[in-house]
Amino acid sequence: MSEVYATRRSRLRERCNAAGTAAALISRPANVRYLAGAAPQGAVLLLGRDQDQQDQLVCPVPPEDRPADGRPDESLVLHILSTPGRDPAVAAADLAGSQGSEALAVEEHHLTVARYRALDAVAPGLRLAGLGTAVEQLRLIKDEEEISCLRIGAEIADQALGELLESILVGRTERHLALELERRLVDHGAEGPAFPTSVATGPNSGRPGHRPTDRRVEEGDFLSVCLGAAYRGYRCEIGRTFVIGTSPADWQVELYDLVFAAQRAGREALVPGAACRDVDRAARQVLDSAGHGAALQPATGHGVGLEIDEDPQLAPAAMGKLDACVPVTVEPGVHLPGRGGVRIDDTLVVRPEADGGPELLTITTKELLAL
Amino acid sequence: MSEVYATRRSRLRERCNAAGTAAALISRPANVRYLAGAAPQGAVLLLGRDQDQQDQLVCPVPPEDRPADGRPDESLVLHILSTPGRDPAVAAADLAGSQGSEALAVEEHHLTVARYRALDAVAPGLRLAGLGTAVEQLRLIKDEEEISCLRIGAEIADQALGELLESILVGRTERHLALELERRLVDHGAEGPAFPTSVATGPNSGRPGHRPTDRRVEEGDFLSVCLGAAYRGYRCEIGRTFVIGTSPADWQVELYDLVFAAQRAGREALVPGAACRDVDRAARQVLDSAGHGAALQPATGHGVGLEIDEDPQLAPAAMGKLDACVPVTVEPGVHLPGRGGVRIDDTLVVRPEADGGPELLTITTKELLAL
Repeated sequence: MSEVYATRRSRLRERCNAAGTAAALISRPANVRYLAGAAPQGAVLLLGRDQDQQDQLVCPVPPEDRPADGRPDESLVLHILSTPGRDPAVAAADLAGSQGSEALAVEEHHLTVARYRALDAVAPGLRLAGLGTAVEQLRLIKDEEEISCLRIGAEIADQALGELLESILVGRTERHLALELERRLVDHGAEGPAFPTSVATGPNSGRPGHRPTDRRVEEGDFLSVCLGAAYRGYRCEIGRTFVIGTSPADWQVELYDLVFAAQRAGREALVPGAACRDVDRAARQVLDSAGHGAALQPATGHGVGLEIDEDPQLAPAAMGKLDACVPVTVEPGVHLPGRGGVRIDDTLVVRPEADGGPELLTITTKELLAL
Repeated sequence: MSEVYATRRSRLRERCNAAGTAAALISRPANVRYLAGAAPQGAVLLLGRDQDQQDQLVCPVPPEDRPADGRPDESLVLHILSTPGRDPAVAAADLAGSQGSEALAVEEHHLTVARYRALDAVAPGLRLAGLGTAVEQLRLIKDEEEISCLRIGAEIADQALGELLESILVGRTERHLALELERRLVDHGAEGPAFPTSVATGPNSGRPGHRPTDRRVEEGDFLSVCLGAAYRGYRCEIGRTFVIGTSPADWQVELYDLVFAAQRAGREALVPGAACRDVDRAARQVLDSAGHGAALQPATGHGVGLEIDEDPQLAPAAMGKLDACVPVTVEPGVHLPGRGGVRIDDTLVVRPEADGGPELLTITTKELLAL
């Protein structure tokens, strides 16, 4: 496994060298984990300016040995700070300066202004440069090992959701259903939820990112659920909407069919080389043409991986194209204020048509189930 | 309630005016909530330069009406962005510039370098200044309404912990015990856990911030638990250590008594006017003198409130003195690698001796219980 991380760091080093900067400081936790195999609390990664200079993981305290957190790549030098309370990023800049680096590329989209100033002050001979989102760009395309973690996470989420559907729902609160789903995720082997589980009933249903309340499930409600498992650090997402009781109302069937058609259009647009904004438009125009444009969220999907919301964004103003082996969500929804709504959300991996097209990771049925 | 928030904003405005800056942009969510009554996702607060200029809450999307999130103070102008994906902080800087502000104080310890540059670029006539931790300083001393929220949160945590102690523990995993505690917190009225619940058994026990694993509780283990409830946004903390089985080993009794003595020394040092570092030293020297200094965490306590870890820090290098009505934790611990350890953690409010001394919010017994 160590080679994977060393290879990732070499690719980043090539980019840094090409950009004329030398050493780099990686502080965003998901980026640290991607390059170092683990991101102990507060740790930063100092990437040496060439292969001869060893990369260092600077940690405020010794990392816990906990399988779910990953293990730091053994080819890294582990540097544990001896001064309690010192910012590891400042310590790393200090190290870089004392090791003769003239420039240090930093993650300006992650460091606060205050930390940046402290870095700038610690090593007077060291010029700070911008690393940009270089690591995020490396993270876009996943290897099969990463996809396999997402696939297992999706299976776990499918299982947790499947079990919930077999239980009695009427009378239970959104908050309790969300907690039960999270317990089931852990039962089936997740490290934990990939993000706070969303359970939305009745007038809350269909709201993106709705946080559970004490509202109880009632007959006739739409129930929309969005959850995901974290597995070896990788985070997937599934969202489904159900109806409570035996026969959905006409407006419910109509709205459901519409969102389903939009979500299918989005899924079918997932081909290598497709512009991200075109995938978004495929889903969005189905809702727009039915007059639900204003009810839409800013994006109809996004990448997933070590973070639950990463690049690419499937949104109207998104730049860039999809590549094979990029996992994304497709999750259009409609929320009608006061009435509720529908969201349908899958995690899929972009694959060439020759390989059978997009790989659906979250396989729970998308029929409108009456529970 | 509205007056509370308006008064807090007036106090901040006075500080800004005294510092020569005019308008201020508050972006750190806990600070936004403190001043605005709510912190809808992504929202920032634009504080006008004088009483005549209304304060504005700039939100990316309309705030959800969810009691646990609080409600935005009605004397604020609610400004919902019409451009999806626009950074509310940038929009607020734009607003400040167009309303004639020449300077805008921002939270440099919260804004990233990239956001700061975007703010700097949007309104050319606007000079960015540092607000420092002015809002955090206002938040230090709590009013009785805030303390009452912490008190209720502590009661909830005590209840959840008490119920766990009545159940069978041997054979259950750390992860499941943590989930069960979190469910019980919600059962008793918490919005959710104040922070990820820590359950540590056997060799893991006593580790600060230990994240639960799949290790199962065994006879003879130390079991250390740390949890807290969030109630109306306020977060408290309790930590206890138990022994599993009927008779604790000699080393367990000895270690427990030592940590208990250290924790009591810390609690007894909590008087208005005491230097924060002296409170830390009171607890720390008990452990130091028994030869456990090296095993200690950087701080033996910290403030709590809208965040679980806020100022003041009870640490060797901490500056400043305690005031009355400041809630803090006192939580020394010892962890012996390979064997386990003890942590005891209370939330207390600093009170003058005339009022009976420190008010203990977390009242679960600190006797060494054998479960």
